[in-house]
Amino acid sequence: MSESNESTDQEKRKPMSAGLYMNYPIDIKAAIQHALDNGYHFLVTQIILPSYARDPLKKGKMEAIGRSDRVLTCNEWGRLIVAEITKTIDVDCDDEQLYLQNKSRLLQELGFAFHLGVPAIQIYLNQANNTNLARIVYNKLLCMYSVSIWLTVPMAYPSRKNELCDPTEKEDTWNWWNDFRSYCKYEKRLGLVLELPDIHNIPSTSEIDRWLGEPVKALIIHSSLFILNIHGKPVLPKAYQEIIKRFMILDVQYILKTNDTEDIAIYNKYLNYLGRKLYISNENENIYKGMEDFLQNPLQPLSEHLDTNIYEVFEKDQIKYTTYQKAIQKALQDVPKNIETPVVMVVGPGRGPLIQAALDVSSALDRPIKLYGIEKNPYAINTLIQRVQNEWDNKVTLIHEDMRVYNPPDKANIIISELLGSFGDNELSPECLDGAQRFLEKDGVSIPASYTSYIAPIQSTKVYNEIISNRLPDKTILSCFETPYVVHLVNFYRIDEPKALFTFNHPNWNPHYSNERFKRLTFSAVQNCLLTGLIGYFDTVLYQDIILSTHPKSHTENMASWFPIVFPLPEPMQIKGGDKIIVAFWRCESNDKVWYEWCIESPRISSIVNPNGRSYFITKIC
Amino acid sequence: MSESNESTDQEKRKPMSAGLYMNYPIDIKAAIQHALDNGYHFLVTQIILPSYARDPLKKGKMEAIGRSDRVLTCNEWGRLIVAEITKTIDVDCDDEQLYLQNKSRLLQELGFAFHLGVPAIQIYLNQANNTNLARIVYNKLLCMYSVSIWLTVPMAYPSRKNELCDPTEKEDTWNWWNDFRSYCKYEKRLGLVLELPDIHNIPSTSEIDRWLGEPVKALIIHSSLFILNIHGKPVLPKAYQEIIKRFMILDVQYILKTNDTEDIAIYNKYLNYLGRKLYISNENENIYKGMEDFLQNPLQPLSEHLDTNIYEVFEKDQIKYTTYQKAIQKALQDVPKNIETPVVMVVGPGRGPLIQAALDVSSALDRPIKLYGIEKNPYAINTLIQRVQNEWDNKVTLIHEDMRVYNPPDKANIIISELLGSFGDNELSPECLDGAQRFLEKDGVSIPASYTSYIAPIQSTKVYNEIISNRLPDKTILSCFETPYVVHLVNFYRIDEPKALFTFNHPNWNPHYSNERFKRLTFSAVQNCLLTGLIGYFDTVLYQDIILSTHPKSHTENMASWFPIVFPLPEPMQIKGGDKIIVAFWRCESNDKVWYEWCIESPRISSIVNPNGRSYFITKIC
Repeated sequence: MSESNESTDQEKRKPMSAGLYMNYPIDIKAAIQHALDNGYHFLVTQIILPSYARDPLKKGKMEAIGRSDRVLTCNEWGRLIVAEITKTIDVDCDDEQLYLQNKSRLLQELGFAFHLGVPAIQIYLNQANNTNLARIVYNKLLCMYSVSIWLTVPMAYPSRKNELCDPTEKEDTWNWWNDFRSYCKYEKRLGLVLELPDIHNIPSTSEIDRWLGEPVKALIIHSSLFILNIHGKPVLPKAYQEIIKRFMILDVQYILKTNDTEDIAIYNKYLNYLGRKLYISNENENIYKGMEDFLQNPLQPLSEHLDTNIYEVFEKDQIKYTTYQKAIQKALQDVPKNIETPVVMVVGPGRGPLIQAALDVSSALDRPIKLYGIEKNPYAINTLIQRVQNEWDNKVTLIHEDMRVYNPPDKANIIISELLGSFGDNELSPECLDGAQRFLEKDGVSIPASYTSYIAPIQSTKVYNEIISNRLPDKTILSCFETPYVVHLVNFYRIDEPKALFTFNHPNWNPHYSNERFKRLTFSAVQNCLLTGLIGYFDTVLYQDIILSTHPKSHTENMASWFPIVFPLPEPMQIKGGDKIIVAFWRCESNDKVWYEWCIESPRISSIVNPNGRSYFITKIC
Repeated sequence: MSESNESTDQEKRKPMSAGLYMNYPIDIKAAIQHALDNGYHFLVTQIILPSYARDPLKKGKMEAIGRSDRVLTCNEWGRLIVAEITKTIDVDCDDEQLYLQNKSRLLQELGFAFHLGVPAIQIYLNQANNTNLARIVYNKLLCMYSVSIWLTVPMAYPSRKNELCDPTEKEDTWNWWNDFRSYCKYEKRLGLVLELPDIHNIPSTSEIDRWLGEPVKALIIHSSLFILNIHGKPVLPKAYQEIIKRFMILDVQYILKTNDTEDIAIYNKYLNYLGRKLYISNENENIYKGMEDFLQNPLQPLSEHLDTNIYEVFEKDQIKYTTYQKAIQKALQDVPKNIETPVVMVVGPGRGPLIQAALDVSSALDRPIKLYGIEKNPYAINTLIQRVQNEWDNKVTLIHEDMRVYNPPDKANIIISELLGSFGDNELSPECLDGAQRFLEKDGVSIPASYTSYIAPIQSTKVYNEIISNRLPDKTILSCFETPYVVHLVNFYRIDEPKALFTFNHPNWNPHYSNERFKRLTFSAVQNCLLTGLIGYFDTVLYQDIILSTHPKSHTENMASWFPIVFPLPEPMQIKGGDKIIVAFWRCESNDKVWYEWCIESPRISSIVNPNGRSYFITKIC
């Protein structure tokens, strides 16, 4: 059973991509063949002749710096080789002469790597201060469009402590990386390679969490980290398995480093076995697959008619509708018995799943209801008309109107809607239900009865770079950063737990009631990190104890609907461990639109994002 | 004598612009007339009826909120009235009901002010936390294009200390202002009005320095600050005179507040007297006038021929040329006596001021020289040809060539040049003189012999906003922030003293010598401030002890040439008192160009500005 499960998962998973690290092989063609034969997909190696790298200043004589580019085809250089920059090159030393020398070596090595057309260049960071290195690499990245840089740091600082420097700041290798990429303005083609530490230096969970918010391209695993199991086979201790399991979500690659380059197949086989063993299947995986970190614009259901694709995606989520059905059943049971035929109105029924749910409840309870469906979308109405005739035995009265203006003959005992967006109120559920409650009995109920949004500060340069890359030609960069995005966010670090933001209750009979909101929330950062925006969730009380939630702590099990929403910051903010992050958030309203504004008050002030809803708003006009 | 001086200065100075503060006058027309009759130029007053402002929630009855707009003409509203927002409106209180109430009052008052078309709206800040106020004002500023907001804060926190809050942060009213304008992204139309404190609260010099780096529009002076002199006339104590003197450079206006609105002429007369008394004339004032804070692009003398206007401005600076002449004289005296006719070459003589200086020295010392002028600009050569014939008795050999390629018949004992820009090396003096030294004798001298650039961190939202406003349509905002500007900077605060950056020496016979440079400099901030960029100066040793300098501590007296240069930061950085500011600065070079890159390493990292010289570079190509 467990075996057959594994094999199914295996079929779904592509095999782990693995690279082999090799010190400058004499015959690179043979070395590649050896790696491929043993299940590896690429080679990480130096491109500069070791003798040249040791003594680059031999002048006068014209000398080869590396092997001829003709030993491999362009296709091989471009697919199979990651070029490692000589580790001894230090352009951030204090000696000016050495700096100039190292700079010219670095430029030469980068230039040769570009010439060869390798897909990635690996550069080790060995120390905290890398300003000059960052400048040179940033300069080159901006002119050379096809290559990526893989910055490589130890996942945890090697245990030999340097007594001269501050242990907390300078020994946290995340800071090395963060400083470097900050100099380079979070450049997208700057990837990260993490070297697994020895067993005494395994980082804490929160450190791993933070690394998972970074563009990690590969993990370096040294064969010395393996231990022998009872069969004498090399395996990785549990602590490493835990780390690898967590990084699988990012589809990272593995780079094996070993002194024994002969017997390399065994490690790769083990890693592939591990990939299958650690892989956890998720019911909704197929729905989500390929949507990781993909930015979607939130729906505008009032001004734009939803299309059939969207309805179909909605309806696939059975968990959501069975939960609704439970709520409807409870609510209908609570309608006083003296009301012979309770009036139930589904506002915005779309293609009818909630109508179906209400009919099912009525039939299950054997209690007849008068059922209305009020829908503004003419194409959804078209579907509903046919379902009323063919499936629902003409038991449903259809109204083709906007619920905010419709004038009904009856008042409803129950109004049912599913107008909630990823942030709860962000598809104007409050405004729509405020309009619809005109035709609700004073003691009638709304399903949902309330909903609450939540926000948390996040680090995700992935989102930052996606926003820049996906800019439409008619938008400014600023306007793209002043817009929230719905996203199945994977490559991010949540800096603190989400906190409740705005709550809306229905019905609401207070005549002075406003749907504008303001709230200030305070979060804490446990460690240095980069604040790039806010992530939003919501939960909703459908009826009494029946709730739906996308809040990570209470997420409705197996519910596929609603990815989180992200509110970006135009300028990422460096955060220190221990900092308080204070967020101010507004929901604003004018005659024709609703929008959010947000800003950071602490540890430093950001300017107010999206003033006047200039870049993003939800229109109230149909 | 002193009197006549004063009257000359008075003629040069426009009279101080003064406003009168008045609590809601019954008859605003008469109030204006009264103010104008007594020498004031505008009125600062409320526009909402006091009774309405006290009880704005009287509902039901339609009530006037202020006087009819027809009591004044549009021209009068638009020129003579600054509208004060009711001070009791607090949109940052914790009570939600009160917040909503105050918000609607604020929107009403702002709306009415816009309706009247007043040029400025005065808003008092009474506390440290103003996030909601900032949001509302920022929203309005972005839609209403013609009006300015005058944020008003006490110049120093009133002496009654609030024991509940942190005295250093929350009681520094600069922070109130800085937080507010940071929420509003340093919006240009956000001006500052400072209320002079009572005599026990006069701020320190460094606090005044920092205020001078802000867009101060007016100072509020309460008549109670005046004391009576021996003639029984009201005068301001010395401490206030010192403050007023310092603010005169910003052309601030004055707003008089008094309980006795009858006898107001006397204060205005005194302020005008003070303006004349405190005004210090400067020899170069006429040259500078109107160029305050005006951004100029640095010259590109290699790729573009300088025009006659620029030459004329250069030549106006007698101080510079007499200093050069001293240096030439010393150098010529030091040429060994056995050299019968020393060879002197002026490289880049333009229209000839240094040729004239060399001839004058030769004649004064009665020592004949062989004089060359090597000039690449054909239009300057045209001038020189005529001067050689008409003024210089054919004693000068003209060469129409680029000094970097010219092949001379003689070697020079002295090469004289004036190729220095505002930052010393920024007009490629190093590259030009390296080229020219081919025709310098091994023991020959260059005038200048060396030059050093200096930088200091500054706060100037003036420059920040000028960069945004002056953007050419074919430039991105980023590229405008990655460019240095030459500017007669007035409205700025220098956060720390300048420090030496790069030095170049001439001649330089080291064959491996590079003109690339890198330096890291550490500055300190004594108080909270906003880092918006770096200011650059230079000094140069012309010969031995003869120097020219634009460094503020050693500025060559009365020299008019060379405004400072500013290197902006695309994103201003909030700085705390006590912070170390670490700047990294590079001079970079490729085959065809030279450029600078810069960044901040501490207290937080900025991305590297101008990578690859993508936005700004100095071309080496003629």
